[in-house]
Amino acid sequence: MSDAPPPTLADFGHTRDVATRFSDNDVLGHLHNAVYYQAMDTTILGWLLDAGYLSDASPVAPVVASSSCRYLASGAFPDTLRVGLRVDDLSSKAITWGLGIFRQRDALLLATGSVVHVTVSTDTRRPVPVPDGLRARITAELAVPGAGG
Amino acid sequence: MSDAPPPTLADFGHTRDVATRFSDNDVLGHLHNAVYYQAMDTTILGWLLDAGYLSDASPVAPVVASSSCRYLASGAFPDTLRVGLRVDDLSSKAITWGLGIFRQRDALLLATGSVVHVTVSTDTRRPVPVPDGLRARITAELAVPGAGG
Amino acid sequence: MSDAPPPTLADFGHTRDVATRFSDNDVLGHLHNAVYYQAMDTTILGWLLDAGYLSDASPVAPVVASSSCRYLASGAFPDTLRVGLRVDDLSSKAITWGLGIFRQRDALLLATGSVVHVTVSTDTRRPVPVPDGLRARITAELAVPGAGG
Amino acid sequence: MSDAPPPTLADFGHTRDVATRFSDNDVLGHLHNAVYYQAMDTTILGWLLDAGYLSDASPVAPVVASSSCRYLASGAFPDTLRVGLRVDDLSSKAITWGLGIFRQRDALLLATGSVVHVTVSTDTRRPVPVPDGLRARITAELAVPGAGG
Repeated sequence: MSDAPPPTLADFGHTRDVATRFSDNDVLGHLHNAVYYQAMDTTILGWLLDAGYLSDASPVAPVVASSSCRYLASGAFPDTLRVGLRVDDLSSKAITWGLGIFRQRDALLLATGSVVHVTVSTDTRRPVPVPDGLRARITAELAVPGAGG
Repeated sequence: MSDAPPPTLADFGHTRDVATRFSDNDVLGHLHNAVYYQAMDTTILGWLLDAGYLSDASPVAPVVASSSCRYLASGAFPDTLRVGLRVDDLSSKAITWGLGIFRQRDALLLATGSVVHVTVSTDTRRPVPVPDGLRARITAELAVPGAGG
Repeated sequence: MSDAPPPTLADFGHTRDVATRFSDNDVLGHLHNAVYYQAMDTTILGWLLDAGYLSDASPVAPVVASSSCRYLASGAFPDTLRVGLRVDDLSSKAITWGLGIFRQRDALLLATGSVVHVTVSTDTRRPVPVPDGLRARITAELAVPGAGG
Repeated sequence: MSDAPPPTLADFGHTRDVATRFSDNDVLGHLHNAVYYQAMDTTILGWLLDAGYLSDASPVAPVVASSSCRYLASGAFPDTLRVGLRVDDLSSKAITWGLGIFRQRDALLLATGSVVHVTVSTDTRRPVPVPDGLRARITAELAVPGAGG
């Protein structure tokens, strides 16, 4: 996202609010950098849970292959984070989630992030293609508006 | 609280919702026991912050002297916790907060807890009496309904 | 432990070192109070794992019924915590672990704590008696020296 | 690091051991992905603390601009992480730390990561150049062996 204009909440097909905790603040009084990864992870997995792909009955489980975050402004308890979720890439075996972390009270963009999931078989724990049903749901709900792909 | 009937949300003068995170679940799929302490702490300090006693301008700061929790049922992500706060004892130098942690969606009581704060001077870091203003506010907002004290 | 003299490391049959992390410090520059529960939990479960009672093959699993902690001095990153473990009570269905959390570099006592575990069947998830083998091992390794029980 | 051969511990000028905690494991029994960021952060800031650049007396403070991690294998409690630290880039205003996270008992590479710090004035909180003394120490202790820069 480095050369694109900063995203707004309208650029994300799904959002989830994540309340901060006093213990999230570090000694400088700001959210510790790892908290943003907890918020991104919670948003993605919350969406997958609602979609039926994080239960014991799901044929696949997501495994994180990589993640990254760019920090633009400092959040702090008692802020609530509003996390936007979209899909930035969807290949046969990997999902690249794009995230924007905003401060709920004024929609200030605090950070942008990316998480790449591969799907593994719940039975064998080996990589398998992203199921068609999940792929369709991601495309319908989380594809970037106006993106060519 | 061991011999009293289990509290309900009506027994608390203040409540705060604390969203859970995927990473809060342990390997058994339940919230890790330390998460309840983060939720209790966040509720107490959020209230103190709103009351003006957790900022740089506050003359006193709270320091935890002891804490405890009884676990009655298991919560799990994606539950939201609804944490009830009241005051169970208020001496000259210590505040004993009483807490009830409920599952938001059905008000099931998951845990009860207690946290004892002493107040220290922001300047000297030494114990000082609980300020009258804070004492009055606690009594007005958080005293247990019907309790004799 | 309130009326007894403060424990020393010699009062515990087992110890485990738990390194602190930068993110453990709160805005006041001290370990957040919930970190002590993570350290106590890690020490108990590390011991149970080594004893063979935390694996998939174990017939029972520990469930936390209650916990408590008294805070005596403030630790901070980069301290390493040296956590002492003993058994304070062992009934037919519950284990009361006693813990002392010391600062490794000078053995300063930072906190004392207690955790009560009940044992549940790995199959049925219902409470079952503490297995004889576990009971014997706890008594042999973790009983308080000189205690009558 | 994507096209280079995977690093070994010999590729890092500094290492720090970070013990894992039971609560670090997620529901799949592996370390949650955000724990790796806590371990990287702890290693960098521990080194800066020892170098004299993380105390109240330091003229500058580090602020995280971005971070990333690639996950290669799954660690789990009770593993101890051995985190390797080096400098991958050092510009006038930013430090790019390179990290390798290994499992202590067998040196298996679990993850590689990168953290970019900018330095801000402790007084003004505005970006300032990386101090010469810090720059010299980083170059002496953490420069990649054999790298041209």
